[in-house]
Amino acid sequence: MKLHHVIESQQFTVPTLMELFNLADSMEHIVARGGTGDYSNRIMALLFYEHSTRTRFSFESAMARLGGKILATESANQFSSVMHGETLEDTVRVVNNYSDVIVIRHNEVGGAARAAAVSSIPVINAGDGKGGQHPTQALLDLYTIHREIKTIDGVRIAMVGNLADGRTVRSLAYLLGKFDRVKLYFIAPKALQMKQDIIDYLQHHEVWFTEEEDLRKIINEVDVVYMTRLEPVQREGVDPTHFYMDGPLMRYLPKKSIVMHPLPRANEISPEVDADPRAAYFRQTRNGILVRMALLASVLEG
Amino acid sequence: MKLHHVIESQQFTVPTLMELFNLADSMEHIVARGGTGDYSNRIMALLFYEHSTRTRFSFESAMARLGGKILATESANQFSSVMHGETLEDTVRVVNNYSDVIVIRHNEVGGAARAAAVSSIPVINAGDGKGGQHPTQALLDLYTIHREIKTIDGVRIAMVGNLADGRTVRSLAYLLGKFDRVKLYFIAPKALQMKQDIIDYLQHHEVWFTEEEDLRKIINEVDVVYMTRLEPVQREGVDPTHFYMDGPLMRYLPKKSIVMHPLPRANEISPEVDADPRAAYFRQTRNGILVRMALLASVLEG
Amino acid sequence: MKLHHVIESQQFTVPTLMELFNLADSMEHIVARGGTGDYSNRIMALLFYEHSTRTRFSFESAMARLGGKILATESANQFSSVMHGETLEDTVRVVNNYSDVIVIRHNEVGGAARAAAVSSIPVINAGDGKGGQHPTQALLDLYTIHREIKTIDGVRIAMVGNLADGRTVRSLAYLLGKFDRVKLYFIAPKALQMKQDIIDYLQHHEVWFTEEEDLRKIINEVDVVYMTRLEPVQREGVDPTHFYMDGPLMRYLPKKSIVMHPLPRANEISPEVDADPRAAYFRQTRNGILVRMALLASVLEG
Repeated sequence: MKLHHVIESQQFTVPTLMELFNLADSMEHIVARGGTGDYSNRIMALLFYEHSTRTRFSFESAMARLGGKILATESANQFSSVMHGETLEDTVRVVNNYSDVIVIRHNEVGGAARAAAVSSIPVINAGDGKGGQHPTQALLDLYTIHREIKTIDGVRIAMVGNLADGRTVRSLAYLLGKFDRVKLYFIAPKALQMKQDIIDYLQHHEVWFTEEEDLRKIINEVDVVYMTRLEPVQREGVDPTHFYMDGPLMRYLPKKSIVMHPLPRANEISPEVDADPRAAYFRQTRNGILVRMALLASVLEG
Repeated sequence: MKLHHVIESQQFTVPTLMELFNLADSMEHIVARGGTGDYSNRIMALLFYEHSTRTRFSFESAMARLGGKILATESANQFSSVMHGETLEDTVRVVNNYSDVIVIRHNEVGGAARAAAVSSIPVINAGDGKGGQHPTQALLDLYTIHREIKTIDGVRIAMVGNLADGRTVRSLAYLLGKFDRVKLYFIAPKALQMKQDIIDYLQHHEVWFTEEEDLRKIINEVDVVYMTRLEPVQREGVDPTHFYMDGPLMRYLPKKSIVMHPLPRANEISPEVDADPRAAYFRQTRNGILVRMALLASVLEG
Repeated sequence: MKLHHVIESQQFTVPTLMELFNLADSMEHIVARGGTGDYSNRIMALLFYEHSTRTRFSFESAMARLGGKILATESANQFSSVMHGETLEDTVRVVNNYSDVIVIRHNEVGGAARAAAVSSIPVINAGDGKGGQHPTQALLDLYTIHREIKTIDGVRIAMVGNLADGRTVRSLAYLLGKFDRVKLYFIAPKALQMKQDIIDYLQHHEVWFTEEEDLRKIINEVDVVYMTRLEPVQREGVDPTHFYMDGPLMRYLPKKSIVMHPLPRANEISPEVDADPRAAYFRQTRNGILVRMALLASVLEG
């Protein structure tokens, strides 16, 4: 499997996704024995224009398991701050001479695409801007469903929390729209429901979805509960217990269903849920390593 | 030798200490040839919630000599600062999926123990809180005595400086209490003498000790002079020359004795002492690499 | 080829430079296949007392291509800030026990020489102070001329911009003075012309040079145009178009000539120049990897 740049989740077709997930599955063997030396002659440069220790660690772990070398900065804006600034494009051209793949986290929407436009080596988008893309997160979420539920076609998934501003749920809804017979349950306070652009997309592709205001109403109907944060400040008229998962509610979740969360969580999942085998959110971070290993291997082969 | 978590120096028995020191001795051969590839498939994650470049470098060097890979952050609080915070426990569970051992430096006493409580991979405490543990420092101090004096039983050691607040001297006194016929000379201004909890412990274990206010009085009686900082601000009635090591005083130190210091030093040791072969404080930092290599190897085997 | 410390560009004779450049040429093969494992048992410590992500990345990439391990800090002043400070000398003695070579970036002129004076392992100067040395930059500049023009003897080079404060052009003028029949064209506003110390040096060594105030006057006479920033603030009476390279002016540059720049650039080179094969400034950063690989290999052999 060969990829070049990884800029947005929309670039993946269903067959490419399945190929990527097969490759991710095969990475399991490498992780089980700690790593491989196969990519010991490859260098990954992490250009992070804003802190994201979690995402950086995940990419570094993936590259380390592949045996590769890492150049990292979480203050890539230092490139531009010294002596009147340097354009992102110039920085990318310089780093092209230092490494074999660039993983970029940029503070502006479109930053990764700008980097890819001038780069002679592959660029992977590790998140650009608040409203921008974070395709590797979307891919690991989808991979988790594929891995845990064994199928994506026909999956029934509740997305819970602030869906209006949730980058992960928006991307996941978009990706799920490419599969067959998917059912989406959007569980959010009215003011924080999924935005019109995603709704239009789903209607155009004839994807089944419904909007609800209480997780408890549909908990027994779904394969996946994808929890996210509700919102920083408590809003008048919103009852947080409608968007909350705890031990008692887990009793109504079907036995083979799972609970996901992009992490970090605030208090929307009670710690008592952690011990339940259906709590998949820490396995989800592990799947992130497998997916990122697969992506890195693909672009380095390409 | 198998260890799992390394949380506090008290967890080590005398036989375990000796086994650890033998393993540290054997690491000398690896360092002499630069390193080994034996642990090339192992990943160490450094979770530092406060800066400690010195300790970080020491652990990174130890892991590099073993051939392993490193994920590092000196701003681990970024894990919790992004979007309303994440508990230490959740961060540890996430990092469990990224690495094979966690070395943690936490800003609160008990932080390492909290991490170990939920971790599926070994946790090594690299210092937690000002009054907390820093077991790998205590172990390298003890190893230095073992290596330089050839015995710990019967050793006569002067501890000099602010003993009341000195984490290293407190831990070392505690560890030395496990050995036979040790003699401890506590050299400090009265207000900065060793605290009652350590005194009680030593009396309970029938360890010989004495309190003095001038290093010069007992310099010719000891095998080890363990220098530490006196205190930030000069105190009325305290004569710093009583807690100071220089060339003239070195003439009174027995030929096979040594001078130690946890570093960084302020001005309690004159630079003219550095050239004396009995000045062991830079060798002490080298011993830190050997001990940390032994600890990492032990927990990664375990 | 064996080197020990690399502190200032003046330490290199012409034969040593040629030997270094031959070694840099041979590093091309290693980079072409991604890297080597030859130095997998070697550790480079980067002690950066000020941020320089660009220089750090370049050294890290060079060491990674050689297969070596890296300990890095961009806040080496943490060594001295913790608890009343530690001298640079003590820090170096400690890091001597952690690594096999130290690459230091210091904020004071002479910092690298102070480090070398007490170090038992090689020290490479990665820039010390604003008016200090940055020898690896000077070496990669000279190597770029050697590599692109095939000869340094007889080369005709225009240096353009603020020459009074330009560290790179000053060092390069100095190094070029060691070669035969070199012609230097200093293109700067009068107030920003090359300073008297360099002028004296060139006159003493009978090196041909001239001073001009407009690049366009001599563009067709030179093998190399070495562009640098003019100055932060626009100065009265200075016409920036005299010190500016763009597409139209490139038509007057001889076919086998090149344009160099230490980067980052501000706006003294128009982006339309980038696509011209004579634009050598991004290749120049690539040459930096080769030269730094050669230097690291030399000092690690030594």
